[in-house]
Amino acid sequence: MDAHGGNIYKLEKEFNISKEDIVDFSSNINPLGISEKLKNEIINNMDILQYYPDPEYNDLKSAIARYIGDDTDHIFVGNGAVELIFLYARILKPETALILSPGFIEYSLALNHAGTKIAHYRLNEKDNFYPDIQGLKKEMEKGYELIVICNPNNPTSMFIEPEAVLEIISFADKRNQRVLLDESFIEFVDPAYASSNISLFKKYRNVFLLRSLTKFFAIPGLRLGYAVSHDSGFMKSLKKYREPWTVNQFADLAGRTLLKDKDYISNSVELVSKEKAFLYSALSAVEWLKPFEPFANFMLVKLQADLTSADLKGILQKQGILIRDASNFKFLNNKFVRFAVKNRKCNEKLLNALSNIG
Amino acid sequence: MDAHGGNIYKLEKEFNISKEDIVDFSSNINPLGISEKLKNEIINNMDILQYYPDPEYNDLKSAIARYIGDDTDHIFVGNGAVELIFLYARILKPETALILSPGFIEYSLALNHAGTKIAHYRLNEKDNFYPDIQGLKKEMEKGYELIVICNPNNPTSMFIEPEAVLEIISFADKRNQRVLLDESFIEFVDPAYASSNISLFKKYRNVFLLRSLTKFFAIPGLRLGYAVSHDSGFMKSLKKYREPWTVNQFADLAGRTLLKDKDYISNSVELVSKEKAFLYSALSAVEWLKPFEPFANFMLVKLQADLTSADLKGILQKQGILIRDASNFKFLNNKFVRFAVKNRKCNEKLLNALSNIG
Repeated sequence: MDAHGGNIYKLEKEFNISKEDIVDFSSNINPLGISEKLKNEIINNMDILQYYPDPEYNDLKSAIARYIGDDTDHIFVGNGAVELIFLYARILKPETALILSPGFIEYSLALNHAGTKIAHYRLNEKDNFYPDIQGLKKEMEKGYELIVICNPNNPTSMFIEPEAVLEIISFADKRNQRVLLDESFIEFVDPAYASSNISLFKKYRNVFLLRSLTKFFAIPGLRLGYAVSHDSGFMKSLKKYREPWTVNQFADLAGRTLLKDKDYISNSVELVSKEKAFLYSALSAVEWLKPFEPFANFMLVKLQADLTSADLKGILQKQGILIRDASNFKFLNNKFVRFAVKNRKCNEKLLNALSNIG
Repeated sequence: MDAHGGNIYKLEKEFNISKEDIVDFSSNINPLGISEKLKNEIINNMDILQYYPDPEYNDLKSAIARYIGDDTDHIFVGNGAVELIFLYARILKPETALILSPGFIEYSLALNHAGTKIAHYRLNEKDNFYPDIQGLKKEMEKGYELIVICNPNNPTSMFIEPEAVLEIISFADKRNQRVLLDESFIEFVDPAYASSNISLFKKYRNVFLLRSLTKFFAIPGLRLGYAVSHDSGFMKSLKKYREPWTVNQFADLAGRTLLKDKDYISNSVELVSKEKAFLYSALSAVEWLKPFEPFANFMLVKLQADLTSADLKGILQKQGILIRDASNFKFLNNKFVRFAVKNRKCNEKLLNALSNIG
């Protein structure tokens, strides 16, 4: 089974379907697609490829700083958020970590490579996968060196409001615990959080805040993420241990172009909000499906029928529809799948295919 | 001082010169520039950015396999050769390593991070920086776990013929020593080596052969390198520890496009050979300069005058000419600079500027 969604290449080969004919609900990408402004910028700046990227990424960091309302000194860019997850784990090498789970699989992988002893704080189905904050604090008292939170969370699409996140961060700070807070999907909840959460969390040096342009700006092929930290000593270590030029020139250009594209941002939020409501409501009406309320641009769905997640994936795959079998997430099982929110035509194709199964 | 060449961004800011007006002799990029075929492919395939890269990079590896005449199983792709240098060091974690020096600075950095005890095998000026093969073998008998060779070497542009490299590899193999062989500039010596060296070295499981598309195909901004290894156990470790999607979609596309572009390859070799001979001969005629015979697309030059490498860099910088101060390479000093071979117009601009100094 694939560790991630989005492996359209395997589907192309196995079923002899061309990429363009695959409707991919398995990767959580903004259905608005790539911004036309970015396409034009790439076409008009082809020659930057013959230069090495700026090793300091100064202009890119300035663009991010303006977007989030912070200083460039607190920003670190990476080849997708994934590079930053691995770099963080490798440098911090925490002895113990507590991951809110089910969660993105790369946290465990990165921490495993760093030799960390990992515990999972279970998010329960009966609570719609929302954490029991007091229970979490009690667990944190056991003294984990690192707490890992993804908000909104993947694959549950559950969202913890910023004040509750602040409570966790502050509680951790008092105990010298660090928090890896992954906000890769935050703009799908509300683009205002992109800056307001920074001003809320920035007095806490124990937070390593991750962001991604991959999902919201629909550029998973270009690879761009960033981290925000107010721990200057740790930022120095990051700089010391990072490999040069991991962010390519077009990703650098994308950051400088997309973060100031207010039309794209508002159009995306409008489209995703509308389609999320449509898909959630339509799926709720399907007797054998139980979708959990989504805050990001995807939703976790439980199958209340005889078929398994692998069965459903297989059935849809034959029709060129790719979904994420969510059974390999910690604490989930073969009754869970994840659907991305796409445009109306695609969402209807999925709904239509599902209606033929029940 | 910059650890690498190519930092045109600093020059832009410090001297208020635009990137287009800088003549960059500090980074070793093919003066033919980016292939028009690649530019067209990018324009026609903009939509691939909204997909994650193939996590297995199967088509890219097939293109490389055809180019070098080997199987995809023995190929590992990376975000530039640099990612592969760091990944190799991190996974192998050799206790000791012997680096032929002066050499590319990232080997030491990567091995330092891995906790390796590093020794340097000195390449001597009096030998035009060509290694004493018997002396090297004698040194290797001390039992280093890893030998690091860059061929042709950066910054000396010295080339060890394949038979002599084979002798070193075979000698190392008998002693269970590994060889990191960086051939990032090999096509500039002769594109035929790209495949013939593979067939020569491939029976040795102790070799980790590195290649780059950055320099020869003039895409330092896109980031693409690959490694060839016939050690299947080690390849498994690489796969296990690598972070997903480090090679972006356009880099993947570039590999599939460029390696079969025979015209670009032959035109590049023709241009660089001609200009290398021209620049080497012209520099040899300058009394206060001593260029060492170049095999790659750059040359190491010794200043036989009162001024230092930093002085010369400063003087040329004011005229928008960026060169590599080579004083921070092991065993070199402030009398060494490195010039890339560029097109005739640029080479003449450099020669003209130099003639005004003497």
